[in-house]
Parts: sequence; C-alpha cells; structure tokens
Amino acid sequence: MSMDDIVLHPPFNITRSSHIVLTVADLDASKAFYTDLCGLVVSDADSEAVYLRGMEEAAHHSLVLRKGNDPVCQRVGFRVQTDDDIRAGYDYFQSKGVESSIVEVPFQGLTLHVRDAVGVPLEFTSSMELRPRLMTAYDQYRGASAQRLDHYQLQSAKVRKSYEFYQPLGFRTSEYTFSENEDGSEHLWGVWMQRKGNPHDIVFTHGPGPRLHHFAYTLRDASDMIRACDVAGALGLGQRLERGPGRHGISGAMFIYFRDPDGHRIELFNTHYQHIDIEPAVGWSLSNPKRADQWGLPAQEQWFAEATRFAGADPSQPDENIPLPTLEKFLARKAAERA
Amino acid sequence: MSMDDIVLHPPFNITRSSHIVLTVADLDASKAFYTDLCGLVVSDADSEAVYLRGMEEAAHHSLVLRKGNDPVCQRVGFRVQTDDDIRAGYDYFQSKGVESSIVEVPFQGLTLHVRDAVGVPLEFTSSMELRPRLMTAYDQYRGASAQRLDHYQLQSAKVRKSYEFYQPLGFRTSEYTFSENEDGSEHLWGVWMQRKGNPHDIVFTHGPGPRLHHFAYTLRDASDMIRACDVAGALGLGQRLERGPGRHGISGAMFIYFRDPDGHRIELFNTHYQHIDIEPAVGWSLSNPKRADQWGLPAQEQWFAEATRFAGADPSQPDENIPLPTLEKFLARKAAERA
Amino acid sequence: MSMDDIVLHPPFNITRSSHIVLTVADLDASKAFYTDLCGLVVSDADSEAVYLRGMEEAAHHSLVLRKGNDPVCQRVGFRVQTDDDIRAGYDYFQSKGVESSIVEVPFQGLTLHVRDAVGVPLEFTSSMELRPRLMTAYDQYRGASAQRLDHYQLQSAKVRKSYEFYQPLGFRTSEYTFSENEDGSEHLWGVWMQRKGNPHDIVFTHGPGPRLHHFAYTLRDASDMIRACDVAGALGLGQRLERGPGRHGISGAMFIYFRDPDGHRIELFNTHYQHIDIEPAVGWSLSNPKRADQWGLPAQEQWFAEATRFAGADPSQPDENIPLPTLEKFLARKAAERA
Amino acid sequence: MSMDDIVLHPPFNITRSSHIVLTVADLDASKAFYTDLCGLVVSDADSEAVYLRGMEEAAHHSLVLRKGNDPVCQRVGFRVQTDDDIRAGYDYFQSKGVESSIVEVPFQGLTLHVRDAVGVPLEFTSSMELRPRLMTAYDQYRGASAQRLDHYQLQSAKVRKSYEFYQPLGFRTSEYTFSENEDGSEHLWGVWMQRKGNPHDIVFTHGPGPRLHHFAYTLRDASDMIRACDVAGALGLGQRLERGPGRHGISGAMFIYFRDPDGHRIELFNTHYQHIDIEPAVGWSLSNPKRADQWGLPAQEQWFAEATRFAGADPSQPDENIPLPTLEKFLARKAAERA
Repeated sequence: MSMDDIVLHPPFNITRSSHIVLTVADLDASKAFYTDLCGLVVSDADSEAVYLRGMEEAAHHSLVLRKGNDPVCQRVGFRVQTDDDIRAGYDYFQSKGVESSIVEVPFQGLTLHVRDAVGVPLEFTSSMELRPRLMTAYDQYRGASAQRLDHYQLQSAKVRKSYEFYQPLGFRTSEYTFSENEDGSEHLWGVWMQRKGNPHDIVFTHGPGPRLHHFAYTLRDASDMIRACDVAGALGLGQRLERGPGRHGISGAMFIYFRDPDGHRIELFNTHYQHIDIEPAVGWSLSNPKRADQWGLPAQEQWFAEATRFAGADPSQPDENIPLPTLEKFLARKAAERA
Repeated sequence: MSMDDIVLHPPFNITRSSHIVLTVADLDASKAFYTDLCGLVVSDADSEAVYLRGMEEAAHHSLVLRKGNDPVCQRVGFRVQTDDDIRAGYDYFQSKGVESSIVEVPFQGLTLHVRDAVGVPLEFTSSMELRPRLMTAYDQYRGASAQRLDHYQLQSAKVRKSYEFYQPLGFRTSEYTFSENEDGSEHLWGVWMQRKGNPHDIVFTHGPGPRLHHFAYTLRDASDMIRACDVAGALGLGQRLERGPGRHGISGAMFIYFRDPDGHRIELFNTHYQHIDIEPAVGWSLSNPKRADQWGLPAQEQWFAEATRFAGADPSQPDENIPLPTLEKFLARKAAERA
Repeated sequence: MSMDDIVLHPPFNITRSSHIVLTVADLDASKAFYTDLCGLVVSDADSEAVYLRGMEEAAHHSLVLRKGNDPVCQRVGFRVQTDDDIRAGYDYFQSKGVESSIVEVPFQGLTLHVRDAVGVPLEFTSSMELRPRLMTAYDQYRGASAQRLDHYQLQSAKVRKSYEFYQPLGFRTSEYTFSENEDGSEHLWGVWMQRKGNPHDIVFTHGPGPRLHHFAYTLRDASDMIRACDVAGALGLGQRLERGPGRHGISGAMFIYFRDPDGHRIELFNTHYQHIDIEPAVGWSLSNPKRADQWGLPAQEQWFAEATRFAGADPSQPDENIPLPTLEKFLARKAAERA
Repeated sequence: MSMDDIVLHPPFNITRSSHIVLTVADLDASKAFYTDLCGLVVSDADSEAVYLRGMEEAAHHSLVLRKGNDPVCQRVGFRVQTDDDIRAGYDYFQSKGVESSIVEVPFQGLTLHVRDAVGVPLEFTSSMELRPRLMTAYDQYRGASAQRLDHYQLQSAKVRKSYEFYQPLGFRTSEYTFSENEDGSEHLWGVWMQRKGNPHDIVFTHGPGPRLHHFAYTLRDASDMIRACDVAGALGLGQRLERGPGRHGISGAMFIYFRDPDGHRIELFNTHYQHIDIEPAVGWSLSNPKRADQWGLPAQEQWFAEATRFAGADPSQPDENIPLPTLEKFLARKAAERA
C-alpha cells in the first residue's frame, strides 16, 4: 500500500488545524471542565458561547462551546495562510462542484464553509483576533495546562474516500494502519495526515461515521499529564478518564483521554516527532497491538464505540466490518503471554 | 473500629522492612528483569543466587533471587537496630512459645528466623555488609531507577490475627480498610502497618493466604515511573505491566505493578507521607472506590486473585468471603456515572 | 574524625524537626510568598500571626509567621513522641543545669522551651491540633506545592559545641564536612544530624552564629521545583531565587533557595536517602567542591554571608576563619578546567 | 521597528535547519560527550568523521564531527523540500551574483554550498539516507536523550545584514531584541528567524562575528534536562555546564548550555511555541533582563564572549559596541532589588 503521494503545490495553503466548535448542554459546567481540568483560558464568553484557547495560543480561540441541546460537533476548523488562500479555496471547491460559501464568524477574518467528501462540516479561516500568549504566565497554569490544539481524529465509514478528499489539498500521510485480508490484500483502516510538520492535523479511522472521535491538545510534558489525572481525581472527575496514561506506537505520543460533560472526547498528549522531510509513510498492521499501546491497558470498548456526531451529517456504518481487539481479548492475551 | 493502640516500648527494636528472598526458575532472566527494567544493581551473584539493591541502598541486598523450581517467597526480612535486638527478639518469641532460631546468612550479621502467626517465614537481621550508595551515579541509572525497598503487601486469611502478631512488636497502623456488615458491624479487611515513619512496612489484606501479594520499591518521581513503562515497552515487556499508572487513595502513592518472569509482583511507586506523630489511623470503607484508585483503571481481576505462596506455608481460604469490585463492575460503574 | 557515636537510648524521644517561628514585617506579603510561590496552606491566621503547613502535613503548623519589626527567628521547633517525653526533657535539662520551662503555645500540646549550647531558642512539643492532610487535594496545589518541613540549617561559631549538645539527645550524624589543616589535623566544619531516619533534621555549618541559614521543605519531584521557579518568574519574584537549581553532593538532594520578603531563606528540595541503619557517617573534605554542587553554579557569596539572627542571641564570629571558595573562584576554576 | 515582512513565495523552499559540521581534536572524546551525555546516536563513523542523529530523527545525521586541529564550524546545514529546490537555489544565488556550487556529500542527496552575506558557510540538501527513528527505543536512551536538532545561534558583527540575507529566502522573524539609543532610535541587536513553524531555525545576535554561538537540540521535558545535568555530574563533566537550568523570556524555552571537549557550545532545551500564523514579531528591549532569564542566574561573561569560528571566515568586531549586563552587574542588581 503506497501512501506517499505528496502534493507539493496544493490549490491553497492550509497551514494547520485551528479550532473546533462543539454544542454543549451547560456552558458553565463545560467551561469548568475545560479550564479547571484541561487548563484552557477563556478569551471571550457570553450567554450563548464560550471561546477558549491554550496557554501558548495567540489566536483568539481553538475551542468554541455553543449552548444547545444536541451534543454535536458543529465545525472542524483549519487555518490558511492569507485571505488569498480563502479565495483560492473557494475557487477550488467551486471547480470541483463542491458547495462552499464565504461567511462571517465572530473574532475571525475571512472564513470559508464547506463539507468534505463524507459530510464533515469544515471551516477555513485566514486570521483571528490576537490575544496574549500565556505560556510564561505560570501562575495561571491549572490542571493539564493544555498548550495548543494539535489535531482531530474522526471516524469515517469510508476512510479511503476521506483520504482522497484531503490528499489533494496537500495533506501528507505520516502513518497509517491496515487490515490484512485473507486473500493477501490490504485494506486501509486508518490514516494520519498533516500540514504543519508533525504527525497529524487530522486522522481518519474506520468506523461508523462521520463522527468526531476526539480532538487533541498538546501538553508540555508527562508531569502535566499526571497532574491532570490528579486534579481530575481531586475534583471528583476521575471517572471521566477513559483511557491512559499510555504510550501510542503510532506517533510515539504519551496520552490520556477524558470525556467532557456532554461526552465529547479530548485527548491530552505530549511528545511526537517532526514530519517535514519527504519520506515513506509508516504502515502498521492492525494485528500489531503495539500500534496503539506500547504498554498499559488498551482502550475500553466504549472508546471505540462512542463518538460525537457532526451537525447535519448522520453517521453510516462502514461497508466492511473490521473488528478490533476488545479489552477482554487484550486481558486474555496478556494473561496468556505471561503464562 | 480503633486501630490506634501504640506500643511505645516494644520488646525489641525493628527498624524497617529490609529484604525479601524469592525463588526464580531462571536467574539470568530474572536478573535482567530487575536490573534493565527496575534499575536495581547487583551486589553479588553466583550460580545459585543473585543479590540486588536499589540505587540509594548501602545495605548489601534488599532482593535475593535464589534458583529453584517452585516460585515461592522464601523469606520476608526486617532490620533491627543492633545485635542486642536480635537476642531480645529471640527471648521474646521464646517467651511466647514461638519457635525461633538464630542462623547464619551470607552477607548478613546476626539473623533470627521465625514464622508469624499465620505462617509467614520472617527473618530479622541487625546488619549487612555495606556497599556504596549509588544514588548520584546517574550514569548507571536504568529503567525505573528503583531507589530502595519500602514495604511488603501480603494476603492473609486472618487479617485480624496478622495484625495482632505485629502490633505488639511496635508496628503502628497508618490506614486500614473495613467492610460494613448488614448488622452494622465492621470487619477489618486490610491494615497498613509501619515502623520506619511512613505509611507502610508491611500490609495485610483479606484473601487466600498467607501469600505475598507484592513487594514495593520507591522511585524518585513520576518521570522514572513513565520511563519504566516506556522501557518495558521497548524491551517487549509491556504485557508485564499489570496495573497503573494510577494513584492510590490509601497512602496517596502513584503506582505501577509489574509481574516478574516467575509471576512475582513488584510495585514501583512514589510519593507518600511522613507518619511519625501519634495520630488516629485513617479508615476507609471498602465501598469507597477512591481508597484504591483516585483515577485510572482499577486492578485487573488477576491482580486480586494471583499472588506468590510462601515456602512451607500452604495458603488457606478466609473464613468469610468479602468480594471486591471487579474490573467489569468498575467499567460498568464508570459508564453509569458518565451517563 | 569519628562522627559515629550513637546514643541508642536518649533521655527523651525527639522524633523530628517540626516547626519554625519567624518574625516578618508584613504578614500579607509573607503569606502571599509562602502560599502562592511555596504552596503552603494557611491553618489559622489573625492580625498578629499566620500558621502554615505543607500539603501533606496533618499537624497544625510547620511555619509560624509573627508580625514584628526585627526579622529574627523566634524558635526552632522539634516534636517529641508523648507528653512524658516533654517531662523527661525538662528533667534532663534541669539535671544538666540548663534553664528550661514548660509553656503554653496556641494549637500545641505540652511545650518545653530551652536554649541550646550556643543560644538557639528551641521549642519541643508533644502534639498539635490536627488538620486534614491535603496531599491528594491536587486542585489546591500552587507553586512549589511544598509537602512538609524537613530540616533546619544553622550557622554556628562553634560547630563542635553545637554537635555536642545534640548528640547526647540521640541525634545521629549522617554526613559531615571538615577542613584539612596544614599540620594534617582535621577541623569539623559542618555536621548533618537526624532523628527521623533521613539525612537531616538539623545541620550546623561554620560561620558567624548562631544564625538560621535556612529551613527546608520537601517537594514531590523536580517538576514542582521547576514550576516554583517559573511561578516566581511569572509573579516578578525571579530575583528571589538565590541559588539553584542544582544538586548537592551531601544528601544527594536537588535544591533551590529563595529569600522571603524579610530575607529569611527557604530551601525547597527533593530526593534524599533513608538513614536508619547504623553505618559510618560520610565525611567530605572542604576541598572537594562536589560536596555542595555536583553541577551548576555554586552559591553566591551572599548565600554564605547572609543569615537570620535568632531572638535574644547575638551572633559571634568563629574562633577560626575557614574560607570557602567564592563564586568568582569557582568561575575561574571552571574556566581553567575547561581550558 | 518592523520585523514583519513576510515572503510568502520564496525562490526555493528551505524547510528547516538540518545539520551542522564541526571540527574536533579527538573523535572518541567528542563522540563520548555527544552520546553519553547528550544522548545522540551514531549513524556512521570512520577514522575521520562521526555522524550523529537525535533519538527522533530519521535523517542520517544532524551533527557531523570531523577530525582536525582547528576547532571550527565547517558548515551550517539546511534542508530543502526537493531536488528542484536545490536547483532553484543555485539559480537564485547565481542571479544575485553569489558564488555557489553543487557538491557531493556522503549520505546526502543533491547538496548546494554557498556563503551568506557575512561569510557563514552554508549547505543545503534535499535528502539524506534514512535511519530508524529511535524515539520509542527507550532502552537506548542516555543522558539528555536529545531528540532532534532545532536551531543555530550565530554572532554577527552586522545583524541587520544577516537578517537581510535570510529574510528574502522566506525566513520569518518570530522575536527580536533591540537597543534603545539616546536619540530615541532603536538598533537591531538580535533576530530569531524560522522556516519550520516554531520560533527559530537560525538566530543572529550582535557580537564579533560571524561565529557560531551554539546549536540547539530539543529535549522531551525538564526531567531529561535535569538528568543531563546529573549525568554530567556523575561523569565528572559538571564544569561543562556553562549556563542554566533557566527559562528564557524569548521563546519561553527552558534551557541548559554545555561546552563540548573543543569548546563548541550546545543548547539543550524544551518547550517553545508554534509560529505558523502571520502575526507581529515580538520585540524585546535589551534593557528588559527577562528577555534572557525569567529566573535563575544569567549567563556567565564567557557565555557572551566565547564562540566558535567558521572555517574560512575571520570574525570582525561590530561597528557599534552595545554592552550587555554582566553576571557581576546582575548579582548586584539582584541584591539591590532584594534590599
């Protein structure tokens, strides 16, 4: 399986994953979760929305919480370099027959709305209002002290189709997973794609979709991750820790996953690598459990089963069912290996 | 339940948990596990035994591995202050009608053998040969860089009886767990006892016993614990990690548990508190899950079920069966709490 | 030089260094320093005094700040095991012709006042009111998250005389420093003494005295130490960091030293070793610079020159002047070694 | 002072700082320094050269040590995206009348040699042989476990001229320092420039130049930095630590600086921020000491005075002499602030 086709001159310059918009039932409860536990700071807030950013972020928001009864993801946001890139993006989608529109969004510059090939609502913007970077305001650090939004992971019923939407936009594949079929063929199961020079801006894995599996913020180090767990325990939120601490094989990141009050999933992680040079993407067989866990307990069943729907995009089942090892199987395997 | 009876002037001065003697099938494999992964150093070794100590330890050994086919714990060792304490200990046990003997043990001074009230083979010694403390030999640090032996945890079919053997010897109770019975009475389920001024030198919990549940070494900090996990993953020993990382409520320690090649269980932990002043012991109801886990997945079933037998002491079932929450129940509860 | 004379049965049972009483000019400023930066918590406060404790401490106070114009140390406090030890201590000092008195002190049980051989005002107490241990209240952690008082370091004009006061009380010597004289003899320069089983409860070093050089709290790990430095920077208190981060040879501790608003010096440190067994004290020649610094810049001149006076005890110069390497000499040596 | 002129479409695509070539007197001694202490791994070695890379690097080398008697920096290397960029670079320099040549270099693809405006010997390459990323080979971690080359810092006698060479190549300014002159004007003193989306690929500061002040590798976290210091101490290399640990204001990085056996200076640092969006560069007045040190002792005099010459480029003095605070002034200021 070759995942190395690189578009050196994409139609417009997407620079990075930028911000995400979620519907939440209780703004105060969600704000408390993301500030006291995750350590984000509030850039602006009113009765309908809270705008948050990480400690190192100068852009106005990387997480927008909007009040509402249906806990969906409203938008997945990317940054482009300049206003010209917004216009070039618009032209590109028009030329492909994809409906798109340039819209006004508070605190953002020129903004483009479009849905991707499987229905994910995207938003590109060229600028945001600036706020102070707070990375050296250590007296304001709380909980995980999350630094910046890094990537999104989505479940897709058609991973290949998702890949084929983003690859021509210049997204490069750093790593991917595949199932080995009985006839010797391989099936793309997950793909890690990036624009900003590390392993991921957006990830697609096989499953009922489109759904948002999680969004991820960087932490400075493992001690902030342990502190997040400890603060969760102290706040009585220990049961919100759904997975980890553990170490991914893919990307090499140390991770924890929390569920927020509406069930949206956030990953807090640290350490990954630079992915700038042209080099072959790394492929992992699904049969290699170290792709997900170098050590530690694996994801709970619900970690695979539960995810956030996107506004206006009903998820569908994948054509093929490729089962993953469950926790029970994992525990049995662990016991067997030790015996 | 009162657990506060303090013996200020015990019959002889036991100062700390000191060393443990285990039978292992393959000396080389076990030595590699305890040095490459746990970071212990070899003080002496021959074809029948390996003597290991932690990075900060000046005493010759805190872990002795002896070659043999039956993977048991041969001895649990304590240190006393002087030779006079060995003699006073001998007199004490004689006066109680408990069989004991003064024996010769390599690298140790005056040594006393005795079995406790439920059959655990104990060994007291007043001195060992000295070796250099290596705590600042940072270029020799490996894996977890374990610093020193801290405590033992045993399963006992008669926790109250175990307590009543050690309490008159001056062991103080820092914390304990109890089951709440339907008639309003309480049943002692576990007891954390100490001589050296922190929460534990020896711990007894309810279960088929006597069995050694685990022995524990201190780490300097959480980063050494994460490194231990990562080294385990790199060495292909990730499946040996049986529990953690997590945070105990009792003692406040952050912990991981590994199984060695023979299935003996070692805890690596850091952070606990000073327990020197006279103050009430802390009691935890078994119905409070935070006693064991402030955050993170709980112990696997096998963590409760499996333990190491003692040489010459067949374990018996407890008179009463007090079930603990299993992992499955925990996961169900987590899901329920989140819903 | 032999520093190994151990008193196994001291006249009364001192268990640990316990609390210190300082005069400060501005209670609010000092409270902010010790809570926001050091992470202590307030147990009680009124217009004349603030009582603070570390995150793991259950005893009411380990640091008492009293309002006053003369920035002195009023008392250095030790804990004894029981009320009987207070009475036995009183009898002991009477028998030695040392003036002492049993006094009432808020939040404390039976309390004994006495001055040591060089005039240091001491206070022994057998109990304090209890407050909750907050070590798992991670949402309340601030700055360095100091855990507990560990030891005092004093300058003494007569180190040998200081040693001879504490040694009969059961204080054991873990390490000591000495100058090598031209005639081949050695002169005791500093002595690390302990009751609680780690390297130090009280330390005496050669210099104009008696003066309090610093008091020390434990931290959980190096990451809390770095956080303390970063919070100091963020609060505009970076210039209060007087020394470190660095690594002592003696005790093996990683350390930082801050000066409080009145110039009192606090050490925040982590990692040391267990010192329970009977073993030879470790001697360091003053000519070995690694005793103080394994790496990093050495103490500034003022770190040696400046210290806190004790109430009612004018410092005197030592009989002998034993110079220490200054920062300038150190930098010159560093450059020379590299050349 | 405006430092925000961004070249969106540079003549060829430089992607990142890539590798550096140093002359060393003793290959074995230098190899030991960079592997045992810094944690780099050897990709290839022969009697004339050693090729090293960081734990996360897949490219063959980021540091090349060549045997020789004159301890200079032979080359500062950058990576470009493709072979076409090498050719476009050649054409660009030809069009500007700058001598350049395409050369063969072991383990590298198409390589272009050129000198910058002040004589620094540069090398651009489009590819290198690949080696395994070792970031999850935790059992091979040593010392600082340096992850990857991040940036270079050079002294330049003409900072503005240096800036004007790199800015048209697409290097963006993240931060800069300036002196405030008596006539109200400002003078560019230092400039932090980047291609890869963090604060720096190459930095120029005012001083006798061109000289290499240091090259910098990333670490995973502060605990690896402390370990590096501790390993240095254990190896008897404590005196090689020239500055730190400390926290820069510029970039927000925590840092240490070591001198290698030939006096070449390496920075090991962690934490910085993402610099991808178009936003104003951050300016710092030289009169603000927090630009360099948020806390901790400042650089020693030699840190400013000593640097590595470039092969074939004699350093010259700057036209203007802009003095920096020395350590002595800093200590005096610290004392004054505290008084």
